[in-house]
Amino acid sequence: MINENQRFAQAIEALQQRFGKQLSTNLTTRQQHAHTMTWLENQPADAVLVAHDKHDVADAVKICSEHKMPVIAFGIGSSLEGQLNAPHGGLCIDMSTMNQILHVNAEDLTATVQAGVTREELNHYLRTTGLFFPLDPGANATIGGMVATRASGTNAVRYGTMKDVTLALEVVMPNGEIIHTGSRAKKSAAGYDLTRLIVGSEGTLGIVTEITVRLFGSPECVGSGVCNFPSIDLACQATIATIQMCLPIARIELLDPVQVKACNQYSKLDLSELPTLFVEFHGTENSVKEQAELFASIIEEFEGSNFAWDSDEQARRKLWTARHNAYFASCALRPEARGLSTDACVPISRLAECVTATQADIEASGMLAPIVGHVGDGNFHVLLLVDTNSEHELKTAEEILARLAYRAIEMGGTCTGEHGIGQGKRKYMEKEHGNAIQFMRAVKQAIDPNNIMNPDKIWF
Amino acid sequence: MINENQRFAQAIEALQQRFGKQLSTNLTTRQQHAHTMTWLENQPADAVLVAHDKHDVADAVKICSEHKMPVIAFGIGSSLEGQLNAPHGGLCIDMSTMNQILHVNAEDLTATVQAGVTREELNHYLRTTGLFFPLDPGANATIGGMVATRASGTNAVRYGTMKDVTLALEVVMPNGEIIHTGSRAKKSAAGYDLTRLIVGSEGTLGIVTEITVRLFGSPECVGSGVCNFPSIDLACQATIATIQMCLPIARIELLDPVQVKACNQYSKLDLSELPTLFVEFHGTENSVKEQAELFASIIEEFEGSNFAWDSDEQARRKLWTARHNAYFASCALRPEARGLSTDACVPISRLAECVTATQADIEASGMLAPIVGHVGDGNFHVLLLVDTNSEHELKTAEEILARLAYRAIEMGGTCTGEHGIGQGKRKYMEKEHGNAIQFMRAVKQAIDPNNIMNPDKIWF
Repeated sequence: MINENQRFAQAIEALQQRFGKQLSTNLTTRQQHAHTMTWLENQPADAVLVAHDKHDVADAVKICSEHKMPVIAFGIGSSLEGQLNAPHGGLCIDMSTMNQILHVNAEDLTATVQAGVTREELNHYLRTTGLFFPLDPGANATIGGMVATRASGTNAVRYGTMKDVTLALEVVMPNGEIIHTGSRAKKSAAGYDLTRLIVGSEGTLGIVTEITVRLFGSPECVGSGVCNFPSIDLACQATIATIQMCLPIARIELLDPVQVKACNQYSKLDLSELPTLFVEFHGTENSVKEQAELFASIIEEFEGSNFAWDSDEQARRKLWTARHNAYFASCALRPEARGLSTDACVPISRLAECVTATQADIEASGMLAPIVGHVGDGNFHVLLLVDTNSEHELKTAEEILARLAYRAIEMGGTCTGEHGIGQGKRKYMEKEHGNAIQFMRAVKQAIDPNNIMNPDKIWF
Repeated sequence: MINENQRFAQAIEALQQRFGKQLSTNLTTRQQHAHTMTWLENQPADAVLVAHDKHDVADAVKICSEHKMPVIAFGIGSSLEGQLNAPHGGLCIDMSTMNQILHVNAEDLTATVQAGVTREELNHYLRTTGLFFPLDPGANATIGGMVATRASGTNAVRYGTMKDVTLALEVVMPNGEIIHTGSRAKKSAAGYDLTRLIVGSEGTLGIVTEITVRLFGSPECVGSGVCNFPSIDLACQATIATIQMCLPIARIELLDPVQVKACNQYSKLDLSELPTLFVEFHGTENSVKEQAELFASIIEEFEGSNFAWDSDEQARRKLWTARHNAYFASCALRPEARGLSTDACVPISRLAECVTATQADIEASGMLAPIVGHVGDGNFHVLLLVDTNSEHELKTAEEILARLAYRAIEMGGTCTGEHGIGQGKRKYMEKEHGNAIQFMRAVKQAIDPNNIMNPDKIWF
């Protein structure tokens, strides 16, 4: 019986023989391919493979399967809960050069892409087609990574999340077999929904190599605007009313005053440093006008002010670039600190209560932690800025995170709306899912009996 | 070692002790709870239990689990592929008296219902709230049954299918444990998507006892209309163009001339007996007008004619009642025959080709088989009217069904968009899913190791 070190050494030798220079064991490379986005510890794999195609991925998984060595897929490295760490070592497969857009079918509003294509690359490719891929989690993530974490972001309130826009997948399974799930048909009732079992499985059931996604017609007209509220509570109440009126808003983003200040400084804006909503309307010219007018009448009831909207592309771009840079803007508020972005999601009726309780908790703890959120979905983010040299601050931050997760779950929501569980949120799984976890584990065990696919993620 | 008969006898005795008069072994009752909708053989269970609550279901499943006896859940009996048959006997659990609407949360646009609530009961309950549950598979199915088959229907083109509107489930698992999947939050990235694993699993993984669904605001204005085309092909082309223009149409239903004739006779209409689209627009008054005008301009390019639309409720109701009665209208075309309604779904770019090839196949075979379809989703139905005393007709019908399934799959679609696999379509699973089936089977084996939940459905 050989030990783990010997097994892994044999696996890496076999991988070197098959892949030559595509494989690296350089420490810096390995560290760059593990978790780098927060203060969670960086745990590199033993080697990094740059995969060129699905057969590379399948062969690598087969070798790892033979030697029972972990395999972790890497897209662009923007996951936030330690999904890329290799606590038990193993192989990291870098998918980023698998970046071909294989097929756009404008008639069916679908695109099939390799897993390493980023959402911006896809939209750049689509720019002359009148179509677009709406999902926008902030980071320029790969589509494969977005499948893995069940990503969503600012546009999800109108266009849905990755579970909604993913039609079909090609997946390398733990035994190295390549399977296809779903089809290009818009719906199917033929057997278990393996597509949605893989979406959000964080690389623990297989490695996605190709994805067929739904596309949408670019709206004829886009209007965007900003408005202020005297309190977070009133901003949330206005959001709730907007959703309840079934206004088909495309984006509705909350920024708390700390976040607005950060954006003003970082993105050279001059927004009032008050609880703020950034909104966007998609439709025909008439419909955008109708939506904006309805929105204006809604926020009036909640003391909303300074609402200005415009369909000018440049103004719009400036606004949303600032929103996308909110993470960096926040980090710049305290350059010596590291940021940890967490998220939670609640039924929208509980949103105001959950956000205000969280804000009060942050204030009481004396921490700096801007709040932003995709509030139309009841989803919001807290970016904790922590001096990681301070044990006290780390402990305080962990406690805030835990209280937020529990608060969201107790309000009938979830400890994560879009970031996933990774390593960081495993401790909340039991609270959220209770005895259902045993069936998730049973599925994992059935599909990956040797536990080689991204082990020790989602649960302990 | 006792044999199966003895095991089942022991199980039924234990069930009788626990449930008394809730349990029936009457043959007629048993037959009424098996498959009755097509010419597929009726295969009754050994006993029928009327469940009053989740604990009844859990206790019954526990008893069946101990004795390794099959369990099949029954909603209202409207499934079309033999999902309710008990080829190996066992217990049928009738969920229809579990029909309480437990909670409507208007603020969150959600409702939580027991599995036996029908979609019409839910909408009747909601009538004063300004909200509605849009999914409409034709039959007045139970919400639990709609979860089981991943149902959709006429409104799915705008509002999605059961996979899209189901937020959370309570499920009795094969070991009798009650679990909860999902939450009332609109989205989550916390672990495997057990909700969507259960949706469409046709009772093979567990029995759904409660469902939380999304509701939608009743549209301020509803416009509906009818138009004709010189050919099925042009009607499909007009549908494709409508979807590609991203017109947010709420319903777009194709009826072939045979179906129009049947509806005219059955529902006392005087529609032109030509390829016909029934359409519906939801929105504000302005938006409905805008949609109808855009639609009128689209169909003009495809020789569409006689387009008349109206927001009058009575005219609308007459039209959609006729559409809903299409099944019975078709059966009335040949009263001595039995109908078998099949469905297929293709990428919309292939719809015209798939429907016309199918129509040609039916004509060449000399069969009577009206075509209707939720064509906005690329989904259509063929209702084969067959004299079941004729071996020749049965064989011809089976061949048409098989060719249709293969045609749809080869066009990048699926052998069923909404009816499910049941017993009737198991033979197409391998063609459609290839080596992915082994992982569906692995999931089934992991969750239901004794294969007691609706055995011999979805696969052989």
